[in-house]
Amino acid sequence: EVKPPVAVAIGPFAAGAGRRAVIAGPCAVESPEQVLRIAKAVARAGATALRGGVFKPRTSPYAFQGHGLEGLRWLRAAGDSVGLPIVTEVMAPAQVEPLARLADVLQIGARNSQNFDLLREAGGAGRPVLLKRGFGTTVEEWLASAEYVLAAGCRDLILCERGIRTFERTTRGTLDLGGMLAARSLTSLPLIVDPSHAAGRRDLVVPLARAAWGAGADGLIVEVHDTPEAALSDGAQALLPADLEALCDEIGVLPGEDGSVERVRTAIDAVDREISALVSRRLELCRRVAGAKRRLGRPIRDEAREATVKARFAEALGGSVPETGAERLADALIGLGLHAEGWPGAGAPEGPDA
Amino acid sequence: EVKPPVAVAIGPFAAGAGRRAVIAGPCAVESPEQVLRIAKAVARAGATALRGGVFKPRTSPYAFQGHGLEGLRWLRAAGDSVGLPIVTEVMAPAQVEPLARLADVLQIGARNSQNFDLLREAGGAGRPVLLKRGFGTTVEEWLASAEYVLAAGCRDLILCERGIRTFERTTRGTLDLGGMLAARSLTSLPLIVDPSHAAGRRDLVVPLARAAWGAGADGLIVEVHDTPEAALSDGAQALLPADLEALCDEIGVLPGEDGSVERVRTAIDAVDREISALVSRRLELCRRVAGAKRRLGRPIRDEAREATVKARFAEALGGSVPETGAERLADALIGLGLHAEGWPGAGAPEGPDA
Amino acid sequence: EVKPPVAVAIGPFAAGAGRRAVIAGPCAVESPEQVLRIAKAVARAGATALRGGVFKPRTSPYAFQGHGLEGLRWLRAAGDSVGLPIVTEVMAPAQVEPLARLADVLQIGARNSQNFDLLREAGGAGRPVLLKRGFGTTVEEWLASAEYVLAAGCRDLILCERGIRTFERTTRGTLDLGGMLAARSLTSLPLIVDPSHAAGRRDLVVPLARAAWGAGADGLIVEVHDTPEAALSDGAQALLPADLEALCDEIGVLPGEDGSVERVRTAIDAVDREISALVSRRLELCRRVAGAKRRLGRPIRDEAREATVKARFAEALGGSVPETGAERLADALIGLGLHAEGWPGAGAPEGPDA
Amino acid sequence: EVKPPVAVAIGPFAAGAGRRAVIAGPCAVESPEQVLRIAKAVARAGATALRGGVFKPRTSPYAFQGHGLEGLRWLRAAGDSVGLPIVTEVMAPAQVEPLARLADVLQIGARNSQNFDLLREAGGAGRPVLLKRGFGTTVEEWLASAEYVLAAGCRDLILCERGIRTFERTTRGTLDLGGMLAARSLTSLPLIVDPSHAAGRRDLVVPLARAAWGAGADGLIVEVHDTPEAALSDGAQALLPADLEALCDEIGVLPGEDGSVERVRTAIDAVDREISALVSRRLELCRRVAGAKRRLGRPIRDEAREATVKARFAEALGGSVPETGAERLADALIGLGLHAEGWPGAGAPEGPDA
Repeated sequence: EVKPPVAVAIGPFAAGAGRRAVIAGPCAVESPEQVLRIAKAVARAGATALRGGVFKPRTSPYAFQGHGLEGLRWLRAAGDSVGLPIVTEVMAPAQVEPLARLADVLQIGARNSQNFDLLREAGGAGRPVLLKRGFGTTVEEWLASAEYVLAAGCRDLILCERGIRTFERTTRGTLDLGGMLAARSLTSLPLIVDPSHAAGRRDLVVPLARAAWGAGADGLIVEVHDTPEAALSDGAQALLPADLEALCDEIGVLPGEDGSVERVRTAIDAVDREISALVSRRLELCRRVAGAKRRLGRPIRDEAREATVKARFAEALGGSVPETGAERLADALIGLGLHAEGWPGAGAPEGPDA
Repeated sequence: EVKPPVAVAIGPFAAGAGRRAVIAGPCAVESPEQVLRIAKAVARAGATALRGGVFKPRTSPYAFQGHGLEGLRWLRAAGDSVGLPIVTEVMAPAQVEPLARLADVLQIGARNSQNFDLLREAGGAGRPVLLKRGFGTTVEEWLASAEYVLAAGCRDLILCERGIRTFERTTRGTLDLGGMLAARSLTSLPLIVDPSHAAGRRDLVVPLARAAWGAGADGLIVEVHDTPEAALSDGAQALLPADLEALCDEIGVLPGEDGSVERVRTAIDAVDREISALVSRRLELCRRVAGAKRRLGRPIRDEAREATVKARFAEALGGSVPETGAERLADALIGLGLHAEGWPGAGAPEGPDA
Repeated sequence: EVKPPVAVAIGPFAAGAGRRAVIAGPCAVESPEQVLRIAKAVARAGATALRGGVFKPRTSPYAFQGHGLEGLRWLRAAGDSVGLPIVTEVMAPAQVEPLARLADVLQIGARNSQNFDLLREAGGAGRPVLLKRGFGTTVEEWLASAEYVLAAGCRDLILCERGIRTFERTTRGTLDLGGMLAARSLTSLPLIVDPSHAAGRRDLVVPLARAAWGAGADGLIVEVHDTPEAALSDGAQALLPADLEALCDEIGVLPGEDGSVERVRTAIDAVDREISALVSRRLELCRRVAGAKRRLGRPIRDEAREATVKARFAEALGGSVPETGAERLADALIGLGLHAEGWPGAGAPEGPDA
Repeated sequence: EVKPPVAVAIGPFAAGAGRRAVIAGPCAVESPEQVLRIAKAVARAGATALRGGVFKPRTSPYAFQGHGLEGLRWLRAAGDSVGLPIVTEVMAPAQVEPLARLADVLQIGARNSQNFDLLREAGGAGRPVLLKRGFGTTVEEWLASAEYVLAAGCRDLILCERGIRTFERTTRGTLDLGGMLAARSLTSLPLIVDPSHAAGRRDLVVPLARAAWGAGADGLIVEVHDTPEAALSDGAQALLPADLEALCDEIGVLPGEDGSVERVRTAIDAVDREISALVSRRLELCRRVAGAKRRLGRPIRDEAREATVKARFAEALGGSVPETGAERLADALIGLGLHAEGWPGAGAPEGPDA
């Protein structure tokens, strides 16, 4: 018996039960300047949390291992500066306590998805936990790992699908949205998606993010860098700040509260493009409904239907919108529709309700 | 060097270069009545082609193998009756010629994705071909198989991702949208997605279809049955007609030309729900832009901006819409926006253009 | 209920029920000279059948596709010349009849493991069939494909594991010996192994072949080429003739009946090395048994035990060996053992039976 | 540049550079009695180390988690009692120090194969480490994980392949012997194999162990239980003590030094069966060589060759065997061979050298 979905909220950031989050930031915290620059870009785009690694799980011991607790202080400062909570990965039980002191969310990475002592330790730290699925673990095992975190007392657990290992070689992993959806039927916890590690290449991150959004993910976690060619890790899969902005506008994540007039107008333009496309589709439907009416000898205008449409808009737009405003919008749409249906009076300035 | 995307068109059905198709129908053609009933439902929902198997590639030789050429005649009659082209699978070189005589599109199934003689034979039949990726083949091999079809003379080839074999067991396959996107960067051919075989379970088909849509697939191929519990094959993954209808409305595939008034109104209602949501998001953005303006001491109203917004709506809605209609819509949105921004005159009946 | 294992015999070649076969030859038949040269090497090594492809399933339509029926005649001539049956792949139903006229065994390749029409056609051709497992198919599906061949009337079916697709990239495939063993518990058909395609690299073919032998495979099919760097396909995984010879000696496949004195002596030397190693191990065991006897105060010599050992050798070596010969061998071993156990009289020329 | 293979030795236990080990014991240490009983069986069979888990990495937090340090003391006592070193898994950095105090070898399990802090901690503990490959990690990553252990100062590192995750479902994992062999070409460290976790079912453990032996593994680690149906974990894949004994005899691992007379004789019997089979094969080869000699008109007896054979046996059996004993053995074999070759004087009591 799966309970209703729950939301996990951390400051302005929430995921689950209809709330959808975007966590973004560099793979690794490289310097105070780097993380602050990227934090600003991330906030401007509309992300609701800042990610950044300070302890890096690297395949090779000779690769850059992260700036540790010093890096954490840079990340904290950057998050505070832009007003975003911070998410960072914990790799070992001994790191839990110092990280939990400064980080808002403790991330458990894919390689540690069955590091049970770490799961227990992180689950007992009094901080929300973001648990990635291992690239070699099943959905069933992923949810069992979540039980370790919950059993340790964690109340705010977010699960993250990030691609599994398969034979396919054009991408780094294979994003398992079906597995995420199967998990959805087994847990009430929020489920977010990491398209960056699944793709391993920048050009596929945005379309995979859109796919995850289409599948109903409760959020995204993406890697962003402003000079990816110089990144200390995973530069090939990092989005540029502009990519993130476009993605946020497209999936309907609002830009940061402190955004510039121009930034917000870009977002409004994206909305207007979508409204226009929907209105065009609506008009094509009106032409079809007119055909059906003619076949049946039914009149084109149907005032009862118009009233229903208006009432729905009034209800959907809700209390904060003046009633006359909602009605004018519905009238405008109905007027366009009548014109598309070929009703002779349609499109005149006075509209259908004249 | 990848050429620009091409569209493959078959009657009303087209996929690629911005056109998006929905191919739907039963896994197997079971009887003249069954396929006609489902064809009607499929057309009503808005699908642009009817699929149905008459030669069934079954793992076991003792399972139902399809009704063969007799089934093909039933499928053809059903397609003609509802005005949809038909898509059916060809399993062997010797079937190509008789199937090509009646079918609009020849499908090559996943198990035959490297049956090179069949690829050549089907490619030379003068019919469009729909080539599924094998569940064990790489993107590179899939595109190499496509070369066999093209080299045999086929001009209209559609590629279909349908899930690959992985260790995950909650789903039948793992839908590889990343692989589809990687293929996108390597070919100009249309790429569609089969969420039914990837999921293997009805409850995940619609969200995976949405994911594929989000990823930019040029179309979908889905299995539909009106009594799936009695289906001769793959009933567990078949959508019900009502599921297909809801999916088409949601992804913006228009219902069939001959749809009833009620069917089309359902589609209009879906559009109106989306418009309402976008308008709400627009108003939230207006509130944010107002904050930015106040911080900067800029006035709330900006008539140059309003003119830009209006001009964009006029352009986006295009020639078939009366200019006054587009302007009334833009005015309604701008008026709501001004109210959200706290402009004192907003929301009054006369609106911003008073 | 699994029936007892059955053997499939084709001329000198048999696999199953205790008989173990080695099928070897070039990936592709390239010329009459090439296939004859390799056939001689293969026969000399001890392989019991000659393989060679004349219709090649190549990923790309622009790669070498095989010499077809002309190549088949070269293969047949080479096989006849060295007295070996020939195995060749059939890729399409229309090839079955002409191939079956000349080939002793029809091979179905991995890519066609679920090409059901081909399975049926090949199963009805009156020739033994060698069915490879698809690289993306489960053991269950492999056995279901076998049912297609059997249902078409084939009485002599051999199954072949050749590696499956996994995430691992150091090898071409992952040889699934566990899957072969699982199949063993589900079928009475012979199960052979193709280490060449599983490895994809020459240096791993021999140790994987030994592994397959250790797992109890009923045979091997390996690719051999005398100038692999010039091979038209799959040269990187071809064994050299000398590798095959060493492998045959090591796994105990006898060299060809017509082998030279030197070739057979090489094989005898390999046997003698193994006997020596076993005798050394036997002596170490004798030293241990002596320790146990001393701990218990039991005498070193135990004539009842010696009689048992002798009787076993006599029985194991069977009727074709003169009784005195078997006894002399047992005496020699027992004498060495007594010496190892520290029995004072041991090792003297007259032996234990003095 | 791969250095020559190295051996890792711990008491009587060694793996690598020609030494081959068998580590055996229960999945979990369940009680002092259980582990002692199984330790005795394991020693009797011939295993060179005792394994047993006291901290158990279980998928679910609600499953049995092991008896911890108390269990370790039971394991230590059992090992001491039978004279075997002990191997146990360490799951967290904090466990390294207490486990290293009592355990001879620290095992890192598959789920922790990329738990880099644990790798570093275990590598610095001054104990040999046994590092399992993760079921979702590549050979390249496995070797990179090994670098973490080595970089922390470990001089005695053993690598263990234990099966990877694939789509195949008849077995728990897919034993990747090809991957082990690929690793062999990249590292000088000993490579052992765990057939128990790869198979997940008892009936396949022994044949997979034989396969690993055939592939040249430097050792095996297998789970053994005397009442597997009552085991607290993984009972389905545990060998019975008698299975282990038969396996050790078959692969030539000597029984424990303290074995009973009967136990050692069972091992001798296994050797004698193999010698008999080799002698039979030798005689078949002699018949072939005789055919070749007759074709060429060469005499059957060839005293130079006989001298070579004798010299080889003398050399192979080495210094601890009296020369006359080695000669008698060679004479017995040569005599049998001459009889097989049809030489008239063969088989007479006085032998060939009479």
